[in-house]
Formats: sequence, C-alpha cells, structure tokens
Amino acid sequence: MTLLDDTVARIVPADAQAAASAKLALDAKTKPRGSLGRLEELAVRIAAIRRAPRPGRLETAIVVAAADHGVAAEGVSAYSAEVTGQMLANFEAGGAAVCVLARIAAARLHVVDVGVGRPTGNIARGAAMTTGDARTLVEQGVACVRELGDEGVGIVGLGEMGIGNSTVAAALAAALLGVDAERVCGRGTGIDEEGLQRKIRVVRAALAANRVERGDTLAVLAALGGSELAFLCGVALGAAAEQLVVVLDGFISSVAALVAARLAPAAAQAMIAAHLSPEPGHRLVLDELGLEPLLDLSLRLGEGSGAALCLPLVDAALAVLDEMATFETAGVTDAGR
Amino acid sequence: MTLLDDTVARIVPADAQAAASAKLALDAKTKPRGSLGRLEELAVRIAAIRRAPRPGRLETAIVVAAADHGVAAEGVSAYSAEVTGQMLANFEAGGAAVCVLARIAAARLHVVDVGVGRPTGNIARGAAMTTGDARTLVEQGVACVRELGDEGVGIVGLGEMGIGNSTVAAALAAALLGVDAERVCGRGTGIDEEGLQRKIRVVRAALAANRVERGDTLAVLAALGGSELAFLCGVALGAAAEQLVVVLDGFISSVAALVAARLAPAAAQAMIAAHLSPEPGHRLVLDELGLEPLLDLSLRLGEGSGAALCLPLVDAALAVLDEMATFETAGVTDAGR
Repeated sequence: MTLLDDTVARIVPADAQAAASAKLALDAKTKPRGSLGRLEELAVRIAAIRRAPRPGRLETAIVVAAADHGVAAEGVSAYSAEVTGQMLANFEAGGAAVCVLARIAAARLHVVDVGVGRPTGNIARGAAMTTGDARTLVEQGVACVRELGDEGVGIVGLGEMGIGNSTVAAALAAALLGVDAERVCGRGTGIDEEGLQRKIRVVRAALAANRVERGDTLAVLAALGGSELAFLCGVALGAAAEQLVVVLDGFISSVAALVAARLAPAAAQAMIAAHLSPEPGHRLVLDELGLEPLLDLSLRLGEGSGAALCLPLVDAALAVLDEMATFETAGVTDAGR
Repeated sequence: MTLLDDTVARIVPADAQAAASAKLALDAKTKPRGSLGRLEELAVRIAAIRRAPRPGRLETAIVVAAADHGVAAEGVSAYSAEVTGQMLANFEAGGAAVCVLARIAAARLHVVDVGVGRPTGNIARGAAMTTGDARTLVEQGVACVRELGDEGVGIVGLGEMGIGNSTVAAALAAALLGVDAERVCGRGTGIDEEGLQRKIRVVRAALAANRVERGDTLAVLAALGGSELAFLCGVALGAAAEQLVVVLDGFISSVAALVAARLAPAAAQAMIAAHLSPEPGHRLVLDELGLEPLLDLSLRLGEGSGAALCLPLVDAALAVLDEMATFETAGVTDAGR
C-alpha cells in the first residue's frame, strides 16, 4: 500500500457524537441558545473533526507551497515568473502579507518550495507532469502535515504562491466540475479584460491538450498540474487522516482541496472555508465541497492570507466552547429555551 | 460650555490627507494593488481617524455598559430583568462571551454599571428619563472614553447588556429614522412570534406615549431612553473627539452610535461596523451611518461580542500597513499597476 492509498483509507466521516456533545455544552453557556451564530457552528464542526467534545485551543500552522508553472509563458499573469522566487525570499524574510497575518494569528508559517524555478510543463501544450510526479508531490504534502501533527499542530491553513497558478487552478476546476473555462477564470492578481480573455483561451487549450478521464482524479491533477496544488492536496488529505482541521484560503487552495475531496470524499468534512474571493470559480468549488465561507472581504492575494485572517475566529469559537461559564456555574437564570 | 457641547464642537471630519498617504503606502507593499480588499480600506479609514498615515498597532478596549429598563415589565424579553445583574457578575467573573472574546483579541474589558437594578421609566407609559439625566449619562460616557484615551487606548468597542434593551433601541431607531416599529423590531435574544408581535405593540405604544420632536436628539434619547445607550452615545462622541476608532457591535450599540451621529454627524467617520446582526433594524441603522459591516456571522448576543470578534481584523489591517515589506525593500518586481 502506498502512502497515498493508506492515507485515503484512513479518512473517515467526522464524529457526529462529539458534535452533539459540543452543541449541548454550548447550549449550557451563559448566552441565548445559538446566539453566537456561525461561531457556534464552527466550534461544533471542529469538535467533530477532532473527535472530541471539547477540543480546547489548538496550535495552528499555515503551509505555503510555492512553485513555478510552464503556463506562465502564455502571458496569463500581470506578473513575470521571476516573482515567484522573489516572493519566496520575501516569505523567508518575513515581509509578505501572510507573514504579517500569521504573526497576528500566532500561527506557525511553514513555507515549502515544491518547484520554484523548476516550472511544470506548459498545460496549454501538454501535461504538467507525470502521474508519478503528482503522486510524489501529494505524498510529500501528506508527510509534511503528519510531521506538523506530530509536533502538536491541530489546525492547518493552506497557502500558495506561484505566478500563473490561478490559470492552473481554473483548468483543474473546469475539468473536475465539468464547466466551461469562462465560469472559473477570473482576474487573479489583477489582469485586465484582454488578459482575462487570453486566460480563458489558454484554459480551453489546456483542456483540449489534456484529454484525461474526469473520474481519474490523479491523472487530471498530473495533466493540468500545479506542483503546489498537488502538494496542498496532500496536506488536506494528510490533515483529514490525522484529524487536523483544514482551513482553506482562496480559489487556488480550494481547488487543491477539491482534488483531495475527489480522492477521499470524507476529507471535505475536515475543511473550513475561510473566505470567499472575487474569483468567479471560488463559489462553485466551495459549493461542490459543501462549504460556506466565513469571511467576505474581497481578498484576492492568496498566500494563505485569508486563511490567516480567519484563524482568530476559529480560535474564538474554540475559546467560547472551552472557557465560557454555564448558566449553572455563573448563577444566571436561564430562559429555558 | 458643557462637556457635551465642548465634545460635539471638537468632532471634525476624518483626515483625507492621512488616508491618501496610507493608501500610497499600501500600494507600495509586496502584493497586487488592493488585493487585500476591505482590509486595506480598513487600514486607510483608521489612518484617517487617527490623523496619521501610519497609525501603528493600537491598544484596544471594549466598553460594556449595563442597565435595567422599566419596559422589561411589558414582557418583551425571553429573560427576566434579574438577568442583567446576574450577567454583570458574570462579566466581573470573566465567564461571559465578551470576556472570552476580549481575551482572544487582547482587548481590555471595561464594564460599567449605569443603572443595573435602577430601571428607567417604562417607555410604553412615559419618558425613560429627563433630558438632564440623559445629558449626564452621555457626559459620563465621554469622560470614560477620555480616560481610556489618556491611558493609551486607540480603539474602543461598544458593548451593552440590559434585559429589554433591544426594545428600547427599536423605539429609538423608529423615532430617529421615522420608520414603523415593524421595521426595527426583531427577536432580540430569542423571543417567539407572539413575543415579537407584543414587542412591536410596545414600541408603538412608546412612540405614542412620548411625542417628542424628532430633531431634538437629546429629548428623543431621554424620552425613549436606555441608560446604557445614552452612556455608549457619549463613548462614541468622546472617542470621535479624541480621534479614537469606534467599533460598533450589533443593533443596540449601533443605535447608540446613531444618536451620537445625530448630535455630531462627523462622528460617524470615526466608526467601524464590526458585523451585521439578524435584527431587521441593524441594516437600516448602518445604512444611515454610511457603514458596511465587516462580518456576517448571525451573531445576536450583544455584550460587544461582535466588536471583539472583529478586532483581530482591525489589528491585521494595521499590521499590514505597518509591517509588510515594499516591492523596493524586498526586491520584488512590481507589475506597475
């Protein structure tokens, strides 16, 4: 059995019993039932993922996977490919947005170079990588998150950097959802209308150049690629297998999560959607995953920035479950609802 | 000149120059222009309020004002009036939701008893208080926030507790906006349909029993009352005068903010709407204040809980402005957009 097969086999539905216990515990807290709205739902969901009625506060890491893409040569980004490597250095120096936002959230930042300066094949002309390469990257992601889990991390946010990767994600989303390129192509980090039309043409070309069976998820991933997407797919799978909470970021990380959910449908139960980006494909992908985003702040940066911004809400949900007084302990008269 | 008149006179429009400088600084950071969406708008707004292009990270306090209301006798709440005092004790013991959420946000919690066990007059039958009482409470709020400002606080969240106070807020909103009770009455902490209909009748009775000139804001506040609303109105005014950022919570604190903005329209420029509650009047009040809420999580607890949940976003916005690298310092090629 390979690491991937073993991981997929270990992903089971979240724990409904733990969820029910957490719900009961929240109902005993000094507040009207359900009055903390989605924060309460979040606490219940995490209890189910962690298989614990009272998961406590959890240590958090954001995994940022960076890679280059052959398709960048098609002029699909406002930025040149050299920016991926420059931003990798910026991550290491602590100056990028996700560095600042991870600090605010007291999250560990784990940056992984999975192909910076070593671009995948240009998907407009052929496969990004072999199925073997894709499997290796997914398994590297699994191994990465296992290590984080062993070190005590309970929540992992998904981040990415790679000039051209919103085109790759759009191609993957179009293939996996069976929709036209137009519905999943957006302006990414900021292309103009002409650039958007070019991007749509490139995604259509990629789908034509890579006629793979939609049901063979690993083959689709290999053909349309994205080394960082393959790696993050592995992070999502490994996290679900280890009962870690997976916090999605924007469109690109959500597509990586969709690949994971196609390989192991129950993995979606370990996921939380941090925010809704303006990329048109994001809502489609989140709907397919059955996820409702927590924030809607017009974020379109990636890097895990939206995941980082959502982490204080996640922490707050857990703290409410863990630390609030009950009507009984606080001597507050309950309305009995 | 009274403290209130002096405070109102000192409230001036936010600083457009500081806003423009902050915007330029954000555009130089290593991210596509505007790609952090509303987080960037937030940083720019705070720069304008603080009259500083780079306000830095700011110390935060949440002021929770608690009081009782004669109108609670009309059966408008799912909870009995004794709960206000019990919750005051719970705030002091650190077990309430806002205590937990303020800790998460590293915010100071400042709980003020402005009338617990000393209910105002029942507004369904007459005035809540005299205009002199209302003025005194507003000025106490001004004094409170001045002290916080002197102690180094730069951001103040508004919180409240008081059984029956969503009825009081609805009456005030109906009077100030000139709309029917139906449009501003909601289920508060959790009344049923019958309770909601009773609440609407009570608000209509309050408007009939207190026929005051809509333009005389202080008279409206005194008639329809809410000691904690008057106090929070003063906090909002004092904060705006001292260039402190005011973070609104739900419907009730937003109505207090609306009273402040009627007394000094420029005060609204110092405000940030933390979230949108399910109370039907909340959107009306925020629209009137020209504010777009940051979160939408179906929170209906009050206490300042939504304001507390929003504070990490505010802190993140300031940290991005203060701590991110620029294209130049990080050596990242800018797309020049």
